[in-house]
Parts: sequence; structure tokens; C-alpha cells
Amino acid sequence: MPTGDIQAGRFWRLLMELAEFTDPDQPWTRQAFTARHAEGRRWLKERMQELKLEVSVDPAGNLCGRRPGTDPKLGAIAIGSHSDTVAGGGRFDGIAGIIAGLEIVASLNDRGRTLRHPLEVIDFLAEEPNEFGLSCIGSRGVAGALTEDMLDRSNAHGTTLRAALPGLGAKPGPIASAVRRDLAAFFELHIEQGPILEHEGLDVGIVTHIVGIRRLAISFKGQAAHAGTMPLTLRQDALIAASRFVVELRAALDARSEPGFVIGTVGDLKVIPNAPNVVPGEVNLIVDLRSDRSEYLSTWTERLKALAGRCAEQSKVALARFDVLSASEPAPCAAALSAELRASADASGLKQRDMVSGAGHDCAFVSRVAPAAMLFVPSVKGLSHCAEEWTEPEAFAKGVGTLMRAVESYDARQH
Amino acid sequence: MPTGDIQAGRFWRLLMELAEFTDPDQPWTRQAFTARHAEGRRWLKERMQELKLEVSVDPAGNLCGRRPGTDPKLGAIAIGSHSDTVAGGGRFDGIAGIIAGLEIVASLNDRGRTLRHPLEVIDFLAEEPNEFGLSCIGSRGVAGALTEDMLDRSNAHGTTLRAALPGLGAKPGPIASAVRRDLAAFFELHIEQGPILEHEGLDVGIVTHIVGIRRLAISFKGQAAHAGTMPLTLRQDALIAASRFVVELRAALDARSEPGFVIGTVGDLKVIPNAPNVVPGEVNLIVDLRSDRSEYLSTWTERLKALAGRCAEQSKVALARFDVLSASEPAPCAAALSAELRASADASGLKQRDMVSGAGHDCAFVSRVAPAAMLFVPSVKGLSHCAEEWTEPEAFAKGVGTLMRAVESYDARQH
Repeated sequence: MPTGDIQAGRFWRLLMELAEFTDPDQPWTRQAFTARHAEGRRWLKERMQELKLEVSVDPAGNLCGRRPGTDPKLGAIAIGSHSDTVAGGGRFDGIAGIIAGLEIVASLNDRGRTLRHPLEVIDFLAEEPNEFGLSCIGSRGVAGALTEDMLDRSNAHGTTLRAALPGLGAKPGPIASAVRRDLAAFFELHIEQGPILEHEGLDVGIVTHIVGIRRLAISFKGQAAHAGTMPLTLRQDALIAASRFVVELRAALDARSEPGFVIGTVGDLKVIPNAPNVVPGEVNLIVDLRSDRSEYLSTWTERLKALAGRCAEQSKVALARFDVLSASEPAPCAAALSAELRASADASGLKQRDMVSGAGHDCAFVSRVAPAAMLFVPSVKGLSHCAEEWTEPEAFAKGVGTLMRAVESYDARQH
Repeated sequence: MPTGDIQAGRFWRLLMELAEFTDPDQPWTRQAFTARHAEGRRWLKERMQELKLEVSVDPAGNLCGRRPGTDPKLGAIAIGSHSDTVAGGGRFDGIAGIIAGLEIVASLNDRGRTLRHPLEVIDFLAEEPNEFGLSCIGSRGVAGALTEDMLDRSNAHGTTLRAALPGLGAKPGPIASAVRRDLAAFFELHIEQGPILEHEGLDVGIVTHIVGIRRLAISFKGQAAHAGTMPLTLRQDALIAASRFVVELRAALDARSEPGFVIGTVGDLKVIPNAPNVVPGEVNLIVDLRSDRSEYLSTWTERLKALAGRCAEQSKVALARFDVLSASEPAPCAAALSAELRASADASGLKQRDMVSGAGHDCAFVSRVAPAAMLFVPSVKGLSHCAEEWTEPEAFAKGVGTLMRAVESYDARQH
């Protein structure tokens, strides 16, 4: 049984040091492919080397630090997340998951403890939106989901992603050689980026699924008209149709009684021509639909198409567009690894719950090729992707401790 | 009793000639204070002079052509509208009302007929939005509603309206001397700019009131949040509140049973931050509220404030703003003049109805200082302020004939 403990102060100090690699004009910003990101990675590489890890950058640009195991037949246990941020992002998303890995290695080193499995700490390349318009670049590579077309994408300077990778120190070779079918287990610790754990007074969340996302583009087309001279009865007001849709979408979600997770949001809505004295002729909106079940994404897409049609008809406008803009599938976490996390939290007397991750993570891609699990720690007020993003040091310590004990327990089982 | 008739072909030819003074790249555009507008006015002045009218430009920039009457004790009968257009506007708004005046003078001249009242044809300055950000400049001047502050407004070149007026040939003198308390009657013929006459198969509309307009600025403020990680039950989604408001505003208007005219439109609505994966933190919208009754504008403003408050509360967001951005009062037309128009249309066997003008017109300002009335002719498909704006020559002929007979009948009565 694992007995060691993590050093919460050391974890927090490294977290703050790496967070400080930020664009000074817009904290906390360390976008992938920038000089700032490269500086952060140099710092990470030094920390890995101090911990005696073998450092490499795989062909997909992931920075990996490896600690050998004692049983040569076993695949690696990997712990990781990403060191890039959104513009104006927070301190913790996603470096907490990398520094957690470093702290676990440090704790094992402190105790002179070697695991049966090799242990890897991975900084996945470019999880957030970046100049190539493609998120999760590194974890896509690990999952075999980084296509030749994606590698041919260019940034604003005309440089392709393929050409940019060597500058990050990526190992030359076919992109397929970045696929990691050798991983025995992958763990990602992340801030929740939502308010559930805080709201329910819990210490950690065990992620059962990472949602799939459908983006639905909807356009209602009526007839622009003079706001004074066009009678109500003769109007074809596209905003009435769109507003009905927004209200009824929410009512339908609130009325759900089926099990599982479905959430939908209209965050992007544009009125045309958008003048106070003109009846709206057109409204374009995007529905962001998320679920932990693939079948729900399909059934709710059909349901929303019917709803949009009804709203258009009631308002005498046309449903001029209903398109699936993008679609990603839900990623289930590995039950055996989640069970390790659950047991570990229980053993420490932590308050926990299972939960669905409504946000995408590197873990979703890694889960395509390896058993993968995620652990959430609370976000103060649920804020994320903003300078106010915060998690208390004590809250992190509980999460990192839970992860370390889960790794040691997993390692100790017969595989 | 009047016996003469108008020459529909002459009216139409002049209408088309004046419409041709347009920005060639964006027909039909003749915005006030542009060279094109000045050319149109030179042409108008020549037409007035051909008809033996005494031409002048008053201190508010209105171009006036005057025909003497036989009774020196009587005030003038004025007929007019405006020769400026919106950008990309139509051929007829508002030159039809000026050319109607010219045709009536021409018809009287043809018949060698002199009226007891002086007769004036007026081209009011700048009814439409223009570089000084002030509409109805000329008719405001006639009504005594052109303030010193308004005269001090500057265009993009830093020229004040006060300084621009002499360039239009305006008579020097205090702006107060533009006020026309000497008018016995004012008539404005205008295209309907809406679909009602066409929809009901009518020839002319007798305007009973020109609406007053309230613009209400409403802001719902919630909390922007991640569309995947913020549970529905904890959201403060400003777009849900705004959408409820739009739907319920329309339902309340549809359910009206009180007499009179009330119409409301949300044509301008902005979502902040307006990203597909962000729960809307703020929505700002403008209600355009119009009525023929001052008390309705007040009661509906209060009613919509209560509605906005309820929508905010139901959606757990704040009603952060509810302001009256602008307010104009309804203008009733003079019953005696409307009766002349009604009788004239009846005498010609025309199909007519009383109606409220949902759009503003010079007539609304003139009605503050003189008995004033308006006559609408049908707009094809209700289209206006666009290149497709159209009224058939025969439809105009019915309107101009109605107006001419009303003027002669009015002139013949004992005053």
C-alpha cells in the first residue's frame, strides 16, 4: 500500500513559477507556438531533468519526461496535461496536471521508491485554440488523430504546422510514430472550470465521461421591415422565431428526465440588420450541444431541428439553415482507473462525486488509445479562462495526493 | 365645387426627373447637404419659377414657392414634403409630396383659377438622417422646434448646421422667424411605406395621427460562463431573459384589446461576449415603441419595465438598465382637413380608410403650429427606404387628384 505523501508547498511553488511565464501585458497568457510558451517548456525540461527523468519531444510536439519502471513487460503510467493557455487565461489550466506529475515523481524520488511501471509526465502540445486553428494538437498526435491535412494547416505567416514542429524540438519521423499504444494508464488532473464541486462542498470530482460536442448553425429568415409601418400581423420577424427557440430550448433541457448529461447553450446570436427601427429580417445563431452519450447528441440534434422548424412556422419565417458545424464524440474514462481515484479519495476521507466533464481535455484524445481517467479539483466560483481563475493550495494538495495514491495503488495491482 | 383634374402624366414625368438626381453608384440617394441635393433643389426652383411661384428659402433652409391668393386676410394653404432621401433610398419618399404640390399649382394655372388663400409648395430641409444627426431640420424650424443647441451641431468637417444654412440660400435672420404661425392649412401626400393599403386593396389612407416614438434601452446582466461546465441550474444567462422579453412583448401586443395604435419592436439586440461556447453574460436591446396616444406610450413603458423585471428575475439575472433613450409625442392631424380629404376621396369613388402613420413625417412638426393633414398612397409590398420602393403612376394620380380637390374644397369654404 502507498504510504508516502506529497509536498503541497513544493507543488504550489512550481505551479506559481511556471504560471509566471506570461505575456506581461495580459496575464496569464502563454499561448502555444509563442516564445513565452517555449520559455515555459525550457523551464519544464529543466525541472524534469532535476528529477532525473529522460526528456524527449515526440513527433507530435509533446514534451515527455520518463522514469523507468522495474518490470520491463509493463507499459507506462502517464500523467499530464498542457502548458499552453488561452489569451488572458488563468494560472492553472492546464499546468496543474503537469506539475502534479512532477510532484508525484519528486515524492517517489524522496522516498527512493521505484514503480513497476515506467512513469511519464507529459506536456501535450497546444490544447487550447492557437495560430493553427486546431486545439489538442499533441494529444491528437498521441491518439493517431492528427491527420496529414491538419499538419498542412498554416498560421498567419504561411508556416505549416508540419514545418513548425521541428522548432519545438520534436523528434523527426512519421506522425504515426507519435501514437502511444504502449501506455498502460493515463491520468489527468485538472481544475473543474465549473462551480459544481464548490457548490456542493466537495474536494474532488471523478470524471466518468468527457462530453461530445455538436455545434448547430441555425438561421431564421423573415423579411426586414419598417418598425412603424409594418403591422404585427403581417410581420415576418426573425427575432421572434429565434427568441422562441432560445426559450423553448432551455425549457426542454430543464424538463429532461432521462438519465445522463445533456446541456445546450445559445451563446452566439446575430440579428440582421440590427437597427432599432427595423423589424429583424434574419437571425443567425449557434447551439452548443454537449452530452456524455453519443445517442443523445443525435436525438437532441433531431429534436432541436423540429423545434427550430416549429418556431419558424409560428413566426411566419423560414428555417433557412440547420447545419451541424462540428461534431465530436463523447469520451468515456476507464472504469478501472476511475475506481482507483475513487478509492484513493475515500481512503483520505475526501468528499467526492462522479461527474461529467462539460469541457474538452487532452484526456479525451488519449482515451482513444489507452485507459485514461481524469480528476477535478474545485474552481473558485467556477471561473476559468480568465485572470480570476483560482484554486486554493489546500484544494490542489488533496487532488495531487489522491492522484499519487491512485498511481501507486494501480502500480501495485497485478496486471 | 372643384371641377378641374390633374395631369397624371405630367406629375409622373416630373417625379421621375427629380428622382434621377441620385448618386449613380447607389440609386436612389440624394442626401441633404450634398451636391446632389443642391442640384435637385435648383431643378425644383426652376420648376417653381416656370409655374410663376415666388421662390424663397426660409431661415430654416426650407425651399418655398408661393402663389398669391385673392383674400389678403387668409393664411396660406401649404403642400409639401422633403426632397432629401436616405442612403440607398427609393424614388418617392418624400418628393411625391412636393411634386403633388407643383401639379396642383400647374392644374390651377391651366384652368386660370386663383384661390382665395395663398398656396405654397414647400420642400422641407433634411427630413431624413443626415450629417448633422438631426432629422426633420426644416419642419422643426417651421414649428419653432429647432433649438440653438441643434444649430450648433457639427458635421464631420466641423461645420455647424448654423453655418451650413446660408450655403443653401437660406434667408438670413433669427431662426425664430422661420416659424409659420401664418399657415391656414398644411397637406402632405406621402407613400405609405407599409403594406396596409395594398393588403386591403385600398386607394388612399387618411392619416389621423402620426405616432409618437419611445426608444427604450434595456440591459440584462448575468454572468458569462463556460457553456460546458456551468450547470443549467446555476446559470445567469442574459440571453434567456432577453429572449423571454422579446417573446412576451410580442404576446402582450398581440393580446391588446384596447382601442388605438400601439406597436413595439426589438430590432437591435446585442449579445456579449457572443461566442458559441460562452453562456451570454449580458444582452443589450432597444425597444422601439410607437403609439397614436401619449398615455399609451407612458403606460406601455411602465408595463415593459415590469415585464423586463419579471424576465430578469425568472432568469436569475439583473435588469441593469431600463432607460428612455428618446421620446417624441404623437401628432394628431387636423380633423377638419382630414374630413376634406375623406370627402374628396369619396367624391371620386376611391376606396379609403383612416390610418395611423407609424413613421415620422414633416407633418408631425408642422402640426404643432398649423392645422395639418396627411394622405397616403399605396406602397407596393410595403417596401420603402430601398431601391425597390414603388407606387404605380395610377395610384399616385388618385392621391394627387384627391389632394387637389380637397385643397379647392377647403379654399371654397367660409373661413
